[in-house]
Amino acid sequence: MQKYGGTSVADPERIKNVAKRVVATAAAGHQVCVVVSAMGAMTDQLLELAGEVSTHPHPREQDMLLTAGERISSALLAMAVIELGRDAVSLTGSQAGIVTDERHGKARIVELRPQRVLDALDAGRIVIVAGFQGVSGTSNITTLGRGGSDTTAVAVAAGLEADVCEIYTDVDGVFTADPRVVPGARKLDAVTYEEMLELAASGAKVLALRSVEYARTHGVAVHVRSSFGEADGTWIVKEEDVLEQAIISGIASDSSEAKVTILGVPDKPGIAGRVFRPLADAGIHIDMIVQNVSAAGRSDISFTLPQSDLPAAEPVLDVIAKLVDAQGHTYESDIGKVSLIGAGMRSNPGVAADMFEALADAGINIEIISTSSIRISCVVHGADLERAVQILHERFELSSAAQ
Amino acid sequence: MQKYGGTSVADPERIKNVAKRVVATAAAGHQVCVVVSAMGAMTDQLLELAGEVSTHPHPREQDMLLTAGERISSALLAMAVIELGRDAVSLTGSQAGIVTDERHGKARIVELRPQRVLDALDAGRIVIVAGFQGVSGTSNITTLGRGGSDTTAVAVAAGLEADVCEIYTDVDGVFTADPRVVPGARKLDAVTYEEMLELAASGAKVLALRSVEYARTHGVAVHVRSSFGEADGTWIVKEEDVLEQAIISGIASDSSEAKVTILGVPDKPGIAGRVFRPLADAGIHIDMIVQNVSAAGRSDISFTLPQSDLPAAEPVLDVIAKLVDAQGHTYESDIGKVSLIGAGMRSNPGVAADMFEALADAGINIEIISTSSIRISCVVHGADLERAVQILHERFELSSAAQ
Repeated sequence: MQKYGGTSVADPERIKNVAKRVVATAAAGHQVCVVVSAMGAMTDQLLELAGEVSTHPHPREQDMLLTAGERISSALLAMAVIELGRDAVSLTGSQAGIVTDERHGKARIVELRPQRVLDALDAGRIVIVAGFQGVSGTSNITTLGRGGSDTTAVAVAAGLEADVCEIYTDVDGVFTADPRVVPGARKLDAVTYEEMLELAASGAKVLALRSVEYARTHGVAVHVRSSFGEADGTWIVKEEDVLEQAIISGIASDSSEAKVTILGVPDKPGIAGRVFRPLADAGIHIDMIVQNVSAAGRSDISFTLPQSDLPAAEPVLDVIAKLVDAQGHTYESDIGKVSLIGAGMRSNPGVAADMFEALADAGINIEIISTSSIRISCVVHGADLERAVQILHERFELSSAAQ
Repeated sequence: MQKYGGTSVADPERIKNVAKRVVATAAAGHQVCVVVSAMGAMTDQLLELAGEVSTHPHPREQDMLLTAGERISSALLAMAVIELGRDAVSLTGSQAGIVTDERHGKARIVELRPQRVLDALDAGRIVIVAGFQGVSGTSNITTLGRGGSDTTAVAVAAGLEADVCEIYTDVDGVFTADPRVVPGARKLDAVTYEEMLELAASGAKVLALRSVEYARTHGVAVHVRSSFGEADGTWIVKEEDVLEQAIISGIASDSSEAKVTILGVPDKPGIAGRVFRPLADAGIHIDMIVQNVSAAGRSDISFTLPQSDLPAAEPVLDVIAKLVDAQGHTYESDIGKVSLIGAGMRSNPGVAADMFEALADAGINIEIISTSSIRISCVVHGADLERAVQILHERFELSSAAQ
């Protein structure tokens, strides 16, 4: 199984290069199934057209529209493979048996019926599956949301029991930090599913969160690598398959969130539910939550959410503030989240303290802290974010191969 | 049933105009099903991409590629209709139940399963069907060939037992001749299916031949009209429904064919079959055929075929010439065919003589003649074609409403 993203198939020349790579894999004796994204800017162009005919494009129709993009790239790649003398066939998500629920724009795969893919592979064909899309039980075309093509690739790889799911992208793999922020960032040879989940959730763009979840659940070995070279990238595997477990695998950063604080909430049982249930009902995804008990039996509740959800959240927050008898609420958009991720953290209790110390030494103020067993995240002022990443990368000596 | 061609949906503004027209029809109390072509130059752009990755794009993959065009326009039109406050849903050819044979690029409809269209209409929705496409019995995406969206519209109209199939286009209807060639050409209020078939077969571009065949077979009333105005266009109906039958309905011309002559063929039984069977087997569509008995028991066989088929025909012709012991063969590309069409011709035996006389008076040489009961076609030199149309239009007084 191979998956190629939008930049890898951005124009006919690149499609021909992908075709060569696919054919070379087949020539090495493998059965090859390929998932492709839409060509480069195609999805954005289609969204722009939608915006010109409609103020709020209907989700079902938007899915019908956008899925044309992968249909185009998959057909072109199949043609290019055939041109090189190998038999190939393109399949839509529906034809590849990707059955989803009805949630247009962010559908989840509920069933995989890969018989048609299997038959074509057994007939010696290279199968090209249009990524990002599926079909609902009522025969409507759906899309899998952001990074959906990664999810398609992992799901089909699981269905086919593929040896590996290679995710080809425009970077060399997963790095200890964003190389644009930290020039000395090092490519990781392997990370665990759990680390990759935390990295993706913390802002690393290389692989979509849901595809990693799917890979972990179904035990699919994922190999993230560059479509512009031959070098090995990063393997994403089970924890027991990682030979040398580093304490810290990588640092992720995310500047797309905003911080909301609800001030002076009476400290009574059940308050948190009354704050967060209306937000959940409004489909707003809350990330970090902190509650500080303050004076006089009242506390402040702070949390982060995507900046893009702020307009939808504001009226809900007005309602919530009244509902819980709060003293008010504030927003802050100019924040950044920096996260340290590493499975080795579990047996190294000093990591959090090291992190806070390093940030303090650099004069960077921490606004919110949140942790999991393999991750520590700090919200800092937006202007401090890049520097925080650089300082932590140095502090934990991530540039050198042997930590 | 309404059908809008590529120019009618060429950009977001025009799509919004089509949406208004569709909504107005629904507001007048009609159930509305719409078939759309791909936006303007979309199909050509996709073909160009195909040409850049493949010298001979695989027909199945080309169909997968091209059908994305109508998927895009149908989704955009559905969004635009919803924006105007009416419920709408776009359906692919497959979802609309258009089942075809497997002949990619020129599939024929073998079955119509319009239940999903009917259900949506009964639920009060405006249904937008992606034209030009269907699905084969083995679940491959197919296209219906040139003018395929017209065929989709007529077929779905037949399946739904629609009152009328309105074909919206960028001209006002069917004219007595091409208005660019004959400025005084007159719009026809009505023509018979048979006349329209002959017009389409003789080079009139307004409606695809197969859609007219389908309309005739299934008795679908077709109304060809402009999407840029409100005026009535041309009705295509059964002969008994045309009130005043003109002798000549219109003049069509076609400069896309070439003439082939096989010289000195021995005059023996079975020769014609041995000439035309290999061409038919090669998928080459032969139009007019004339055989002139010449001296010494040998004859010349001339016929016309699309210029685009010449490269494929040449090697076949070499084989044929040897096979039938001919003395050689010649090609002529610079020819034109002018055709007079009218159901009233049947009861007016003098029409052919009038036509030949008019061309002779103008010094135009006739190379081949072919006739049906309601059509007379003459092949002339390419340079004479426009003048031939103008002269015949005047000779048969087609500009004046009362002939």
